Amino acid sequence: MTELVLPEDVAVVNVGLSLFTDAIRDQDRPVATVDWRIPAGGDLEAVAALKRLYGSRGEAIDEANAEVVRRLDEGVPLLVGLEPASRVVPDLGERTILHCGPAIAWDEMCDPLRRSVQAAVVAEGWAAAPADAGALVARGEVLLEPANSHMTVIPMASAVGPSAWVWVVECREAGTRAFSAINQGPGEVAWFGRDTPAAIERLVFLAEVAGPLLAEALRGAGPIDVFGLAAQGIQMGDDVHMRTQATTNILWRHLLPHLVALEDPRRVDLAAFLASNHLFFLNLAMAGARSLTEWAAQVRGSSVVWGMARNGTTFGVRLPGDDEWHLAPSPPVTHALYYSGEGPETSAPDIGDSALLELVGLGGPAGAASPAVASFVGGTMADAVRLTEDMDRICAGRSTRFKLALLDFRGTPIGVDVRRVVETGITPRINTGILHASAGTGQVGAGVAVAPLECFQQALLALDRRLA
Amino acid sequence: MTELVLPEDVAVVNVGLSLFTDAIRDQDRPVATVDWRIPAGGDLEAVAALKRLYGSRGEAIDEANAEVVRRLDEGVPLLVGLEPASRVVPDLGERTILHCGPAIAWDEMCDPLRRSVQAAVVAEGWAAAPADAGALVARGEVLLEPANSHMTVIPMASAVGPSAWVWVVECREAGTRAFSAINQGPGEVAWFGRDTPAAIERLVFLAEVAGPLLAEALRGAGPIDVFGLAAQGIQMGDDVHMRTQATTNILWRHLLPHLVALEDPRRVDLAAFLASNHLFFLNLAMAGARSLTEWAAQVRGSSVVWGMARNGTTFGVRLPGDDEWHLAPSPPVTHALYYSGEGPETSAPDIGDSALLELVGLGGPAGAASPAVASFVGGTMADAVRLTEDMDRICAGRSTRFKLALLDFRGTPIGVDVRRVVETGITPRINTGILHASAGTGQVGAGVAVAPLECFQQALLALDRRLA
Repeated sequence: MTELVLPEDVAVVNVGLSLFTDAIRDQDRPVATVDWRIPAGGDLEAVAALKRLYGSRGEAIDEANAEVVRRLDEGVPLLVGLEPASRVVPDLGERTILHCGPAIAWDEMCDPLRRSVQAAVVAEGWAAAPADAGALVARGEVLLEPANSHMTVIPMASAVGPSAWVWVVECREAGTRAFSAINQGPGEVAWFGRDTPAAIERLVFLAEVAGPLLAEALRGAGPIDVFGLAAQGIQMGDDVHMRTQATTNILWRHLLPHLVALEDPRRVDLAAFLASNHLFFLNLAMAGARSLTEWAAQVRGSSVVWGMARNGTTFGVRLPGDDEWHLAPSPPVTHALYYSGEGPETSAPDIGDSALLELVGLGGPAGAASPAVASFVGGTMADAVRLTEDMDRICAGRSTRFKLALLDFRGTPIGVDVRRVVETGITPRINTGILHASAGTGQVGAGVAVAPLECFQQALLALDRRLA
Repeated sequence: MTELVLPEDVAVVNVGLSLFTDAIRDQDRPVATVDWRIPAGGDLEAVAALKRLYGSRGEAIDEANAEVVRRLDEGVPLLVGLEPASRVVPDLGERTILHCGPAIAWDEMCDPLRRSVQAAVVAEGWAAAPADAGALVARGEVLLEPANSHMTVIPMASAVGPSAWVWVVECREAGTRAFSAINQGPGEVAWFGRDTPAAIERLVFLAEVAGPLLAEALRGAGPIDVFGLAAQGIQMGDDVHMRTQATTNILWRHLLPHLVALEDPRRVDLAAFLASNHLFFLNLAMAGARSLTEWAAQVRGSSVVWGMARNGTTFGVRLPGDDEWHLAPSPPVTHALYYSGEGPETSAPDIGDSALLELVGLGGPAGAASPAVASFVGGTMADAVRLTEDMDRICAGRSTRFKLALLDFRGTPIGVDVRRVVETGITPRINTGILHASAGTGQVGAGVAVAPLECFQQALLALDRRLA
């Protein structure tokens, strides 16, 4: 661009495009920036909808949003049990595999999710090997359904059959009940898109050893306040999405006497698995979040997103009172750190149900809590704070439960308001892992995904039509 | 004071006393402060010593200090075992109780330490009740010796007999070996100055159940890099002195498979004790620090403190090559939060060997790592950062192991230089608990103790004499 040349003593207030600011700053002149952009990128239909949704309908929407925020903030998800999915997950057919993300046909699934489905089918005993499993599914002899429709949320490329054990989390004041599978751990595992013998073996271990023994330990411990543990974890460097290590450790300390009290000699195998799994709490946090988003989904006339999920092909969001998920292509994961030899070209798009954490004040909104997250977004805590502040600009409230020490203990942003997203063009930032696009070799890195704007725009327009 | 009245457009550079700054700032005038004070408070003897120790002898001292810092920073304390003190602690007589802090006679001990000694004597089986134990000690039939002289460091009002099990920590490159007792946990416990039946029972439990079983679990796990765990804890909100919860949890996760593998049914009692003890790692960190300070103490001609300990009556510091501890009255703990109904008037002075942590980059120097510490020193992370920055002004180096996310991952200050302490008047800030002064009711709060300047002045003058 043409260089701006300034007189000696000018001071500048810049409104809008930062290119100008940068040019002025390059010349060591003082400059104040007002970050103003054309709302909704100038999209006339969106601008008209925003005018109505902030204007004549604004007050009613704000009221509904306050109730959604209250439910997401004050609901207490209690971990009450661990059971086989077949026993507790509602409306789960006999030959059904639940998958992450919005509904999707077998032939549209990305490679990691197909492999994970195949591993689950073999672990169920419906096929002898992954290739047979794939053929079975392709012939329609195994039903594929989104876990989310069954009050179940599962991270990354997870797929869950009826014999998998699932955490049972209740929000009693809401009367809701949500489920998540046992986290499969790092390494050669199906939720990272692997269908090797070891990955299938892990699923069998979870169903036959970890499930029953953890259930027994949990019965001894009694109900656990899932978000109470997460709130402690936030003070200990977790964002409780990309990093759950502190919260996982708190869970082990809590369960320690009950794990030690198990008589079954396989308790030693279980303990070895648990001690090597720093991601364990992720699935519990997700089930906790789902028990709250279901409560939030019952509020009428709100512009706050209750559902956000990805299957590696599509990314979907959903508003209270809306009958459908609004979809866009699943985005790549950016701000990423890759394992050696990996990069964007070997990476599958953003995947998993875990993005719902970003709706309840965990993950991206809790960036400012986490030195580990900082390393993905620029290296300093200031970079991690920016993640929180971006979410603050599009959220309707702040958590009274998840507190950010670095920001004078103010709460993490909660309740993504689709109006603010479309107005500012800022979409949720999601802290997440990255899987290999095609080779079935599992995790290749981790980073931050920026949700696609398009599905939020569709959700906004649908809300505008519903309220008309 | 007389009010300063300023003309409209004055800008001020203030050198020295902040009273002037405050007055100027009160009038909304810009002011830059240069925090200059008369070195050593104008003490002529100290100023003359400083002149020599910074001047003609400065270069040699700086070189020695660099070696001390290297040893404190690079030494790797390895936890290698857990054994009865009688079996491993050097030169431990049969009828001896080791106590925290500098050497002190029975009749000069503060109430919490006397009670703790009594509890230890009863736990050893040398007396039937605390009063009998006190009489026995008063008659000289039990020897009292400072733990520090036996390469042992014990927190708060701890007292240790030969039957107590102690952690064995080695720094192999140094050829040093240090010891600490098993942490007694919160509540009704001897190290908090209690001599009740429950407190004595806890000591017996540690010697008969926790010691042998933890030793077995540790043998399964193999040597543990104590400061490697502490470095992780620093990223998780621990200062690893006042708060050790994250590091303790990491230790449990590490030991989990080995605790679960124990066959002895008393493993359930052990696990219940461990799960309720968030202070557990404190003693391990201390033994790790002691294995390094012993290495540092072997450097000649350094002005960096290697020993800092309190017995509730006196506070002592010690320099490499010096034959004695330099003593001052133990200070009160300030910046404190008290339990309901307690306050400065019911509080014993600062006590315990744990202050050595502040010499190796933990505790006060790691304030900026810990939201929990922030709550004691003003409420915000900026207050906690100030703790770190005060230590930075009196330390000779920075840790390459303990990193502060909030300060762009720079290391915590290590190596307290007695020259800088005397020059600035800033003494180490020690994050610590507070015990009841007389009632034997245990902990009454926690806070930050400011070490007394007097003993650092004495140590400086002694160094000046030694180098003459």
